[in-house]
Amino acid sequence: MSRSPGRKQENHKISRELFVLTYGALVAQLCKDYEKDEDVNACLDRMGYSIGIRLIDDFLARSAVKKCRSYSETADMIAQVAFKMYLGITPSVSCSSATGNEFSLILDKNPLVEFVEELPAERASLCYCNLLCGVIRGALEMVHLAAEVTFLQDRLKGDAVTEIGITFLRKPEDRKHRRN
Amino acid sequence: MSRSPGRKQENHKISRELFVLTYGALVAQLCKDYEKDEDVNACLDRMGYSIGIRLIDDFLARSAVKKCRSYSETADMIAQVAFKMYLGITPSVSCSSATGNEFSLILDKNPLVEFVEELPAERASLCYCNLLCGVIRGALEMVHLAAEVTFLQDRLKGDAVTEIGITFLRKPEDRKHRRN
Repeated sequence: MSRSPGRKQENHKISRELFVLTYGALVAQLCKDYEKDEDVNACLDRMGYSIGIRLIDDFLARSAVKKCRSYSETADMIAQVAFKMYLGITPSVSCSSATGNEFSLILDKNPLVEFVEELPAERASLCYCNLLCGVIRGALEMVHLAAEVTFLQDRLKGDAVTEIGITFLRKPEDRKHRRN
Repeated sequence: MSRSPGRKQENHKISRELFVLTYGALVAQLCKDYEKDEDVNACLDRMGYSIGIRLIDDFLARSAVKKCRSYSETADMIAQVAFKMYLGITPSVSCSSATGNEFSLILDKNPLVEFVEELPAERASLCYCNLLCGVIRGALEMVHLAAEVTFLQDRLKGDAVTEIGITFLRKPEDRKHRRN
């Protein structure tokens, strides 16, 4: 009485709702574990970092992208290829510094909070999606790009958009080069 | 300096690797929180249940499936539509009882353990994917089908395949009907 479907090619594409709800369960668990929002945020960032340093291999293999030649290209790649691939959205990118190493990803819509109505009053400092910052930071580090990644705006906190800031940290040789 | 990509239709499809790694972070956190495997398993099942009772709406809306007329059809629907949609795989289904209310979903490959090499020796009783059982149980309950859902075999524990057992619990009126 076994019914085996035709063996189709394995498909890595999935609907994101199970992921989004599972992420919610993770954040809820951390809120049980840690009293302070800062500790939850830090934990999400650490978890994200561990994920990012593993996810980068999958990303490079699946996207078949070429090496980026500038911070600007890298920021575009994160928004247009990586976010599309793993979250199904494409943030817009803006460069927010004259020195060309600070970028913002603007998310009009954030699928990770699809099932979240609002943050509880006692969790006003929670960066609900902070895992994403860690993922980006970890993945960038694996391609030898040090960066600071933080939420600058968050619709969950009443801001008009959700904005992730990426600041690429100049390497020592860059600075030396500039001094010369 | 803002570059906004052409506004494409929102896409619910994502690559599953970020989900799989995030799920791993969740299980790892619960293993920190609970000493006993049984407590981790129960927590994953409870979390899954909460997810299932919310995910069912998404599933019904997105799949546009019709009402199932038998347990057998329901089991096929879970394997061929739901698993495909949310995990990108299609388990085979077998009916394992003469009474027609016990089914097995056989997963040749389990994407949720893609990044897991093996369970640590001290976690030998962990049902790593137990969230799935809870999700199925919760979703079924919302369509008025009570069921017990458990892992019967698990490749992570050295079994040849991964097998999820679903036992539909007969309703009182079914029993009455059978007695007449």
